[in-house]
Amino acid sequence: MSTQSLRTVESNPYRALTPQTVPDYLTAYPDLAVRLGGKKNAWDVKEVGDGNLNLVFIVTGPEGKLCVKQALPYVRLIGESWPLPLSRAHFEYATLQIETKYAPKYVPALYHHNADMALTVMECLSPHIILRKGLIKGIKYPDVAKHLGEFLAHTLYGTSNLNLPAAEKKKNIARFADNTAMCKISEDLIFDEPYYQASNNRHTKGLEDIAQEFQEDAALKNAAQDMKWKFLNHAEALLHGDLHTGSVMVTETDTRVIDPEFAFYGPMGFDIGAIIGNFLLAAFAQEGHAEEKGKRSHHAAWILAQIPVIWETFTTTFTNLWNKRDAIHSGGDVFAPHVAGSDEAIQKRLHAIWNDTLGFAGMKMIRRILGLAHVEDFESIEDVTARALCERKALTFARSLLLNRDDYPSVKSLIERVEV
Amino acid sequence: MSTQSLRTVESNPYRALTPQTVPDYLTAYPDLAVRLGGKKNAWDVKEVGDGNLNLVFIVTGPEGKLCVKQALPYVRLIGESWPLPLSRAHFEYATLQIETKYAPKYVPALYHHNADMALTVMECLSPHIILRKGLIKGIKYPDVAKHLGEFLAHTLYGTSNLNLPAAEKKKNIARFADNTAMCKISEDLIFDEPYYQASNNRHTKGLEDIAQEFQEDAALKNAAQDMKWKFLNHAEALLHGDLHTGSVMVTETDTRVIDPEFAFYGPMGFDIGAIIGNFLLAAFAQEGHAEEKGKRSHHAAWILAQIPVIWETFTTTFTNLWNKRDAIHSGGDVFAPHVAGSDEAIQKRLHAIWNDTLGFAGMKMIRRILGLAHVEDFESIEDVTARALCERKALTFARSLLLNRDDYPSVKSLIERVEV
Repeated sequence: MSTQSLRTVESNPYRALTPQTVPDYLTAYPDLAVRLGGKKNAWDVKEVGDGNLNLVFIVTGPEGKLCVKQALPYVRLIGESWPLPLSRAHFEYATLQIETKYAPKYVPALYHHNADMALTVMECLSPHIILRKGLIKGIKYPDVAKHLGEFLAHTLYGTSNLNLPAAEKKKNIARFADNTAMCKISEDLIFDEPYYQASNNRHTKGLEDIAQEFQEDAALKNAAQDMKWKFLNHAEALLHGDLHTGSVMVTETDTRVIDPEFAFYGPMGFDIGAIIGNFLLAAFAQEGHAEEKGKRSHHAAWILAQIPVIWETFTTTFTNLWNKRDAIHSGGDVFAPHVAGSDEAIQKRLHAIWNDTLGFAGMKMIRRILGLAHVEDFESIEDVTARALCERKALTFARSLLLNRDDYPSVKSLIERVEV
Repeated sequence: MSTQSLRTVESNPYRALTPQTVPDYLTAYPDLAVRLGGKKNAWDVKEVGDGNLNLVFIVTGPEGKLCVKQALPYVRLIGESWPLPLSRAHFEYATLQIETKYAPKYVPALYHHNADMALTVMECLSPHIILRKGLIKGIKYPDVAKHLGEFLAHTLYGTSNLNLPAAEKKKNIARFADNTAMCKISEDLIFDEPYYQASNNRHTKGLEDIAQEFQEDAALKNAAQDMKWKFLNHAEALLHGDLHTGSVMVTETDTRVIDPEFAFYGPMGFDIGAIIGNFLLAAFAQEGHAEEKGKRSHHAAWILAQIPVIWETFTTTFTNLWNKRDAIHSGGDVFAPHVAGSDEAIQKRLHAIWNDTLGFAGMKMIRRILGLAHVEDFESIEDVTARALCERKALTFARSLLLNRDDYPSVKSLIERVEV
């Protein structure tokens, strides 16, 4: 990555690029142009952003491809009436840099960032597709669960007090403390709105009864409150912040985590719960995609079987990192490995993370069915009755994850109790 | 407070004041000079700092008194070999300002701050004395427990997500994130050193066995680890950070909390546990101060009886504040009061704070007996055998607070089980 590309071009105020203006922008940076090869009139530009917030351009030249991601100053899904700060592009880039440090195999290569333009140029992942779409299609990815478990362990351990001196971690917390507009979206859409009659809420026809039930369920609301307290207060690690299956790109052998623009310091279980909750949603949706009854049950079972692999890879990798803590950090501190009781201490910490994971997984599932932003896993089920049936099962299980956490002391017990 | 006094005098680099130079400094600020009255040669200056870190001057003029507190760039107790940033004076002043907003009755009035000089001029509290000294002397303060409970409730609720919008609270977290040198002292001296053979540790002769036992007690070390995790991660509220009985000045009717230079965003139970732990230390020390056996048991009982008043005043005030949350914050959020389950939710939150309080109280007691910095309650017991006996009882009870928290579900059960 050249220094030239990384500098902030102060004289260049923000303007949203278009497929027509992208080549001019890239030509100004020779190290980017050389990756594409040829001259700018030989470059093909496609805008492919199908998310809710940003512009994404894929640029193809004779020698290679680039991905250009630019934030818009409003929520793309809604329009200019819902403004959103461009600074999120900066937080996304800063997070990708940190993830590159701790888990380089699992993030796209970074080539260029322009803070004024809220723009990052990175590796074009090809022939990768979005994991969510692959799971809907019924494709199996043999290593994705292991890769995700490693990504989680390395990024969460690496940015926590277990790896960083307290002062350095506090600097990180302060650095990301301004990403509040993105955190506010999570606060509202995940923790509050599904639990009262918010105007943003929507749900599939046929779920009126359970939607109302959830809003009147005092125990469920208390559990939601407890998880929101943790989200707001427990600054354990730098989180991706939006780690669903739409934030993961895959081939059969490669896995990359993208889009950390919701990054903040929060509880580790929020990221782990997000990905596990989304695997559960994918599994609950399978029956709705079956051409005939039961035809997708094998694929649903495969999806569920990935959840223990994610969790166990996470715990094994996290434990190994902890046990390898160097003497500089562990010379007498209470987190020192290989002293009396330290194995039990690691187990206790992992159990606390597991408990959080269950709660956040449940909340992530509920918000995707009763809140504003839904998932393609269910939305692409055209038969409304079939969709509502899948969603109802998912909701019921999610509520149990929040309320009966003692019934799921281990990932094995979780999988044994799911009936999709 | 005049704008003039509050401005930072950029051209005035740091220099430590002396009783001789204090009057010249004050004369430059007419609004301060007028509080003293007369001319500077009529002012009496005494340096009275008996703490470990700072200079404290009491200045008396014909019309009034002032307290001038200035940080030294090193730990006064140790010397220049242990440097400490002057910025702590700024964090202390910023915290006093915030405490003034939420609990004005319980902090000294602020008159002047000079960041370059690491200096604050404030109300001279007179005839107040340090609460710790009063408790050692056997003096009763009828309202101190109620006052402390109110101070805790207003400052902890006020700076939490229950009162502040998440973005504003995150700004506060970032603002105090740099007070890391002070937090590091707490991390080392409270959470780590008492649990291994640290060179700073010292203890009364006769406690060798229990000191070693604590260092080999795997369950206790795990509990300490869990509390340190909370100290480092749970950014619930702006804490005083060092709320022992030496940070409280009292008369029979008035209570003021001073010296918040260890302020940071942390778990509420850390402040509550600090003050309760120090009341427990005061009670355990009483027998050592008795002229004859049992002569101080009445005073010990009075000290213990203050602990339920602190806790119950805290919970009642905290609950009232929560129930009065205005509609702007509570319009649909999961922390809304007066909706299904919200009373139980408040109880659950208070119970979590109580659980933390027990753990932090235990750790605060242990560090004062086995760690570097001891307390006058015990140090002033000249008979080493009597002192060791009091300290051993306190250590045993403190360990139980950390390990058997389920035995203390309420403050009542705590008091029933103490035997001083």
